[in-house]
Amino acid sequence: MEQRISLITLGVADVARARAFYESLGWQGQEVEETVFFQAGGLALVLWGRDKLARDCGLDDAGTAAGFGGIALAHNLRSPAEVDELIATAERAGATVTRPPATTFYGGYAGVFTDPDGHAWEIAHNPGFRLADDGSLVLPDFSNL
Amino acid sequence: MEQRISLITLGVADVARARAFYESLGWQGQEVEETVFFQAGGLALVLWGRDKLARDCGLDDAGTAAGFGGIALAHNLRSPAEVDELIATAERAGATVTRPPATTFYGGYAGVFTDPDGHAWEIAHNPGFRLADDGSLVLPDFSNL
Repeated sequence: MEQRISLITLGVADVARARAFYESLGWQGQEVEETVFFQAGGLALVLWGRDKLARDCGLDDAGTAAGFGGIALAHNLRSPAEVDELIATAERAGATVTRPPATTFYGGYAGVFTDPDGHAWEIAHNPGFRLADDGSLVLPDFSNL
Repeated sequence: MEQRISLITLGVADVARARAFYESLGWQGQEVEETVFFQAGGLALVLWGRDKLARDCGLDDAGTAAGFGGIALAHNLRSPAEVDELIATAERAGATVTRPPATTFYGGYAGVFTDPDGHAWEIAHNPGFRLADDGSLVLPDFSNL
């Protein structure tokens, strides 16, 4: 198995609401059959009905949209000021800020919001993780730190 | 907000068990302070204790590792035979196959497994989604289909 991920699909209660949230952050998606696809670097972020996604995975969906789903996404930025700006933009777009931006234990600066379906996004400036010009994250060789 | 994702962190009950699972699929990671980082194309997949991740996100973790967390990851391949092979490899590594490989409603061929913590992975061949030489997924312009 190559070390790559092709799509991340977020199960959502209301595709139109979820699409409007991400578009208010500046993303542009394409909708096909009640599914929204966003090109995000070398993969796609997808919004799809949570019930359909669970069924498609062969899984029972006992949970609700509330609470922690066990996965967090992160979007890294180049400065603390960009973190403050994006967290504020997300809050205006209807996100819930679950951890206000602050310095972190790893020497960076980050905050966390959840989208309208409770999916967690850490918005971070981490000086130890390089961002390439195209925004790709490049892990350091930790053995050299 | 640029259309990109920097990290995907999977909350896990046992970091060593989760690391062993992904390494048995062929991935190679670096562990730092009970956190495992895998470079995956232009982002990183991270394994971290589920309790720590929830707390770090400012979220209550009422759920357990069982059930559907609301997100599915996908790994796309270049042929149906590769899908069968990877699903079999994952099952040997301890995954639970929740949807055996079969043709899909979108004209491809895919199956789904969950990792030891219940995180869902669709393993798919989707002829409509091009894979670049480096494995990056490139969405089509759906308006041209």
